[in-house]
Formats: sequence, structure tokens, C-alpha cells
Amino acid sequence: MDLNEQSITPMTEDECWEFLSMQPIGRLGTAVAGEPEIFPLNFAMADRTIYFHTIPGTKVAEVAINEKVAFEVDQWGPEIAYSVVVKGTAEILENDADIAAAESTNLVSYLDDTRDTWVRITPTQVTGRRLQR
Amino acid sequence: MDLNEQSITPMTEDECWEFLSMQPIGRLGTAVAGEPEIFPLNFAMADRTIYFHTIPGTKVAEVAINEKVAFEVDQWGPEIAYSVVVKGTAEILENDADIAAAESTNLVSYLDDTRDTWVRITPTQVTGRRLQR
Repeated sequence: MDLNEQSITPMTEDECWEFLSMQPIGRLGTAVAGEPEIFPLNFAMADRTIYFHTIPGTKVAEVAINEKVAFEVDQWGPEIAYSVVVKGTAEILENDADIAAAESTNLVSYLDDTRDTWVRITPTQVTGRRLQR
Repeated sequence: MDLNEQSITPMTEDECWEFLSMQPIGRLGTAVAGEPEIFPLNFAMADRTIYFHTIPGTKVAEVAINEKVAFEVDQWGPEIAYSVVVKGTAEILENDADIAAAESTNLVSYLDDTRDTWVRITPTQVTGRRLQR
């Protein structure tokens, strides 16, 4: 293969959100007290906002309290791969309007879900890369 | 589906490493100056150590200098999913014996690789979960 035929190109913000809207699983990255953590999660997206479920008292719930997060989603095909990273702030949803907006995403989880607390990531930056080979 | 038939069970350390040995792509999570970052990466494994490539001067290279990292790999099948997280310290390899050990992994990257600097993650903790539905 000719190395020059390969490319890494930035995705537009629209392309990033379109890609995110089609994916069921992402990874939440956190940095609490200088300790990196990664949690794979089912998520849903609406109005360029990321939603996921958690359980109060768990590690994910702790780090979701107004912490800076990075949320990454990727997919690797035979010829094209995509990777999108959303930077933002996570917060546990407590008011009815926010929870209603979250529930309207119809998030589907891998396991039947007993987690009834919603977390929202409000994005501050979205970047994506398209790899072609 | 009966919710009680579903389960989340911890993986043994042996199961975690066996799973990692079969996977080509993971996500590196870092926390530099309180800022979480996630980088998807091709990786290889040997002697319960994680290896990947980088380019000097890049963001990944910066954070790989003796920083605490979390490295996560997951796979989602129709009935079973796995997620493994390796915590450890990343370092750029500089001596010949370390680089020879890294090269013997025969790491294959998605793109033909011009990245010639090796990074090693020396693990301090490995945990994994098996989700069945």
C-alpha cells in the first residue's frame, strides 16, 4: 500500500455529532485528584448533548458531579475509521424538565437497566478524526 | 427477559490479560493538570505489559512521560460483553533492550505507521467485568 494514499483528516462539528448520533457505546474519561479513569457506557444524544445513566453512590456518579470529562466514541471499518472526543462538564440531573429531556432520548442499555439517575454532559469542545487507509 | 438472568461478574486477572491479548484497539485515558483526555490506540501486549507507538512532540507523547494512565479495552457481543481497565504508568522507551522487547510484539497499526517511538504501560492494577444478558 502506498503510504501517501492514507490520510487522517479532521471531522467537522456536524460530522462529529452525526457520527455520535449513530453509536450506542462510548467511553467516559475522568481526572479526579489526578487519577485517570475510563468507564465504557451506553449513551444517547439529543440537541448536541450526551446523556447516560448511573447509580447514585457509584464511582461514575461521584465523578459526574460537575467534573470535567472527556467522552470518546470510535469505530473501525476495513477502510475508514472515526474517532470523536467530546470535552465538557458532567452533571447529575435533578430537575423535572432536564430529566424529561433525558428520558425522551430513549436510551437503550446493554443490560436491562436498574440505574435510574441521569447524567448529562454539556459539551465545550467536540473534535473528530477520520482515518482512511 | 428476566432481569435476574443478567449478570455483571468480575474477571480474573488471567482472564483480563487473555482478553487484552486478543484485542487490537484500546483507549488511553490520562489526567494531566486535572484535564481528562482519551486517545484511541492500536496496542500490543507482551509479558502483561501494554505497548503502543507515538510521535515525539505530540500530545500523547507528552502525557506518556511517566504519567499515571488508565487503558481500557472493551468488546460487545450479542449476549456477552467484556471491559478491562489497566491502571499503570506510561513511559517512552529509550534503551535498546526495552525497544527490542516492544518491537518483538509485532504491533500492527491501522495506518501504515510513521510513528517510531514506543511507549510502555507498566501495570499496577488490572480489573475486568463480564456482562451477560
